[in-house]
Amino acid sequence: MSKKKENKTSGPKLKIIPLGGLEQIGMNITAFEYEDSILVVDCGLAFPADDMLGIDLVIPDISYLRDNADRVKGFVITHGHEDHIGALPYILKELNAPVYATRLTMGIIEHKLTEHGLMKGTKRKVVKFGQSVNLGQFRVEFIKTNHSIVDAAALAIYSPAGVVIHTGDFKVDFTPVYGDAIDLQRFAEIGKKGVLALMCDSTNAERPGFTPSEKTLGRTFDTLFEEHKNTRIFVATFASNVDRVQQIINTAYKFGRKVAVEGRSMVNIIDTASELDCITIPENTLVDLDQMKNYPAEKQVIITTGSQGESMAALSRMANNMHRKITIGPGDTVIFSSNPIPGNEKPITKVINELIRKGADVIFQDVHVSGHACQEEIKLIYTLVQPKYAIPVHGEYKHLKAQAKIAENLGIPKDKIFILSSGDVLELNEESAAVTDKVITGGILVDGLGVGDVGNVVLRDRQHLAEDGIMIVVMSLDKASGELLAGPDIVSRGFVYVREADELIEEARLTVDEAIQGCLDRGITDWGKLKSTTKDVLSDYVWKKTKRRPMILPIIMEV
Amino acid sequence: MSKKKENKTSGPKLKIIPLGGLEQIGMNITAFEYEDSILVVDCGLAFPADDMLGIDLVIPDISYLRDNADRVKGFVITHGHEDHIGALPYILKELNAPVYATRLTMGIIEHKLTEHGLMKGTKRKVVKFGQSVNLGQFRVEFIKTNHSIVDAAALAIYSPAGVVIHTGDFKVDFTPVYGDAIDLQRFAEIGKKGVLALMCDSTNAERPGFTPSEKTLGRTFDTLFEEHKNTRIFVATFASNVDRVQQIINTAYKFGRKVAVEGRSMVNIIDTASELDCITIPENTLVDLDQMKNYPAEKQVIITTGSQGESMAALSRMANNMHRKITIGPGDTVIFSSNPIPGNEKPITKVINELIRKGADVIFQDVHVSGHACQEEIKLIYTLVQPKYAIPVHGEYKHLKAQAKIAENLGIPKDKIFILSSGDVLELNEESAAVTDKVITGGILVDGLGVGDVGNVVLRDRQHLAEDGIMIVVMSLDKASGELLAGPDIVSRGFVYVREADELIEEARLTVDEAIQGCLDRGITDWGKLKSTTKDVLSDYVWKKTKRRPMILPIIMEV
Repeated sequence: MSKKKENKTSGPKLKIIPLGGLEQIGMNITAFEYEDSILVVDCGLAFPADDMLGIDLVIPDISYLRDNADRVKGFVITHGHEDHIGALPYILKELNAPVYATRLTMGIIEHKLTEHGLMKGTKRKVVKFGQSVNLGQFRVEFIKTNHSIVDAAALAIYSPAGVVIHTGDFKVDFTPVYGDAIDLQRFAEIGKKGVLALMCDSTNAERPGFTPSEKTLGRTFDTLFEEHKNTRIFVATFASNVDRVQQIINTAYKFGRKVAVEGRSMVNIIDTASELDCITIPENTLVDLDQMKNYPAEKQVIITTGSQGESMAALSRMANNMHRKITIGPGDTVIFSSNPIPGNEKPITKVINELIRKGADVIFQDVHVSGHACQEEIKLIYTLVQPKYAIPVHGEYKHLKAQAKIAENLGIPKDKIFILSSGDVLELNEESAAVTDKVITGGILVDGLGVGDVGNVVLRDRQHLAEDGIMIVVMSLDKASGELLAGPDIVSRGFVYVREADELIEEARLTVDEAIQGCLDRGITDWGKLKSTTKDVLSDYVWKKTKRRPMILPIIMEV
Repeated sequence: MSKKKENKTSGPKLKIIPLGGLEQIGMNITAFEYEDSILVVDCGLAFPADDMLGIDLVIPDISYLRDNADRVKGFVITHGHEDHIGALPYILKELNAPVYATRLTMGIIEHKLTEHGLMKGTKRKVVKFGQSVNLGQFRVEFIKTNHSIVDAAALAIYSPAGVVIHTGDFKVDFTPVYGDAIDLQRFAEIGKKGVLALMCDSTNAERPGFTPSEKTLGRTFDTLFEEHKNTRIFVATFASNVDRVQQIINTAYKFGRKVAVEGRSMVNIIDTASELDCITIPENTLVDLDQMKNYPAEKQVIITTGSQGESMAALSRMANNMHRKITIGPGDTVIFSSNPIPGNEKPITKVINELIRKGADVIFQDVHVSGHACQEEIKLIYTLVQPKYAIPVHGEYKHLKAQAKIAENLGIPKDKIFILSSGDVLELNEESAAVTDKVITGGILVDGLGVGDVGNVVLRDRQHLAEDGIMIVVMSLDKASGELLAGPDIVSRGFVYVREADELIEEARLTVDEAIQGCLDRGITDWGKLKSTTKDVLSDYVWKKTKRRPMILPIIMEV
């Protein structure tokens, strides 16, 4: 589709290497490499999968960048969502490089860096839309887009091998709440000059049509506030959706209501957005939650986190009488201005049921618009940019595949569309493109202060413990004679309620005792053998009696 | 709404007691009590909530029925889904009473009873639609309905205090695949004579309109098979949806394809349905999965379980190359004829992504219709039955509330609509109705062979173990002197990868050692004190170093 650029067909190729990966949706991080220069687009974290028990979050394994640290010129960030910036504080500790981002994005990043004590050591540059930064052999231009967070950018990445446009997460919003519409002219202009590859957001690639403008929700809130004139109103939404909060505040102001914001992450973002004038709050509208009691119910609006049913978020605590200041009850109206993120349906429904049971009027449908481009918007971007190669990004495999189909329908040959896996090294220039190598990638688990000290072995143990608990068998042997001095005793946790199973445990103990005595009588004192005998007889016994397989842990002490 | 019946206004009241309960959606079991007679409608199990680690299933606590066992006349079952029959084998072991059900429902129950060795000891009676059974002072009439399983029944429960109609799970299907449409005339006839209370399915009470007929899917399958003439076709659906399987077979036959059924639960139900002539399979259409290899891909249809993303079901195994006989790959078409049950979205998406990655064409939208009545159908039943009292059943709290609103809009006064909680005793007759008492109910956890031996303490331990693992501290004390003979040693599981944390564990050990020596030096040999000291110093140390809270289990051996 793109124009031929004779001067770019030879010479070294550009490498594009996704370091996050499909298995960990959210961990957005991609390396762009040209000779001695590497730049990194985004640096996100992933939230743990269901089977990552006890894990707080997952950050990308950046072995590849660490091995090439001298060539890494910087991190270029598209927008301020956790899945694009969340791993920065962890990664910067390992690999110090400058960070480039737009204003609000940088504000949110700086909040994180402060928490991690990294402000002083990190070079940062706020970039304006239309502005470019030079990073080694690369030049990166920030292009205005729209998304569910203010100040989202697409990137035009200029290299000697050609231009790559990376949309970041985006939608086309002709009437955004804050700032300008997406800079479609610039997409067109760059496209006209010839674009090597387009890396376009696939999240909504399965959905036909256009995503509605954020502004349509202003009318929705007006209607809902009109319909619930005489009640206190709660609105739960995503902490980072500043435009959404703006619109709720606008409607509240129109109806003469006071607004309080509750939930730490939301308060933080609103503070940052206020400082940067990304949100306009009429005087005397925002009040402290503590002050709300001075106003009648019908003059109150409480904007809160917890729209995803998070059990520790403000909304859940208010629904469960666990909030220090606010309890939701009969006569209250609760609006969910959000859609469930896949996997959160059950906890959200639980909160909704709890709220309805408490007597609240709960509105949870059609008070949200997506921040991602649907099929027609994706087609629009392709048509403006006219890339030679299509590299769908952001989303699950099925979403990437759906965008690949769109690209194909727009005339991009199948062999010029690449769905990359984590670690794939795509080498490309005007002449050709191919995956030529694979680098090490993966998720590093963060649990409390520990980064990477919980791996598969530990997770498997946690899973095992979670399923059937543990039986610990302790015994003391005489150092000299090898004689059994005490035990075997059995202690269990998470296996069975012991008072109900006294007999089972006692019988299990006798079984182990007999087996161990048998070994000792036959002169077997090897600890390995004694332990494996203990495991075998006990697990057989327990399986026969209960059809369960608790973890069995024999401990021998020598006295 | 109902007509006054002078002869029913005095005398004892009818009691309705839900024994399953809202918290455990699915555990459908309700007691009806009139003087010396108790009958039980349905006896379902629930699948464990996310926080019930290692639990296989949940059955109702029937303390109340056990305490009144001499008055229990029998179990009356509406249809053969697990949430209505699954607990029967467990409950019958505690409380033997006759079971009444329609043909296919009884067939499925008998399969369970055989597995549990209960066939001989259980009195059973197959009831035809229109037929009644007498149970003490009750008479129960089975009325034909439609649902996502064949032979579903509503119940008209006649008592001296009045008639209650219980719909069971139902929809209104004017063109069912097997058997007749719901017997609306009979609902009308009983309604005309006067109905005390209607207990109506609420599952879809939030959805406007009518649920489409099961038969509409026949055309859908025809179209899909036409569009995928040259590929092997897999269809994943609910094991118990015999009508769905029938339609897939019909279409397969039309297109000259052979059909194999895969997945134990589905094979069982199809066997039972075939024996009872609830499904019609053209000759030479059904073949064994082993035989499929003798036919070209475009002549094959494989109907399979796993539509909910269950990791051990046939479809997941086929997607992950873990199935012994079949692997899904490029060129295959996989149709999900199902909707995600809330909470299953993520595992389903995982399977879909895996299938697409394998190169299969996956169709997962609009190949399913619900088995439950939408708003207009609910209104229809209310209008035919004209009950005095409305008691919404089946569904989450929000669904019950949605039906309550429908009932109110149809003119039933608010104080005649009852949303019951588990254990509520609703006493009612023509004169009045009120919740007058509460009986003990709850969920009993089944884990392997254990019924009720895993309770909250064990679950809390499992949760704790799952989050942060366990640290076991063992030490041997001299019986006579109280001196420390060996240890303290620390063994951990699920806490941290030990090779990475040698130092941490060793330092922790020293910390405990010091504290214990300190105690012993001060003459403290009380085990309780030594254990609590161990817990305190170790948990402080670990928290400080890792911000984690593993379970700490001190074990002292006396030698």
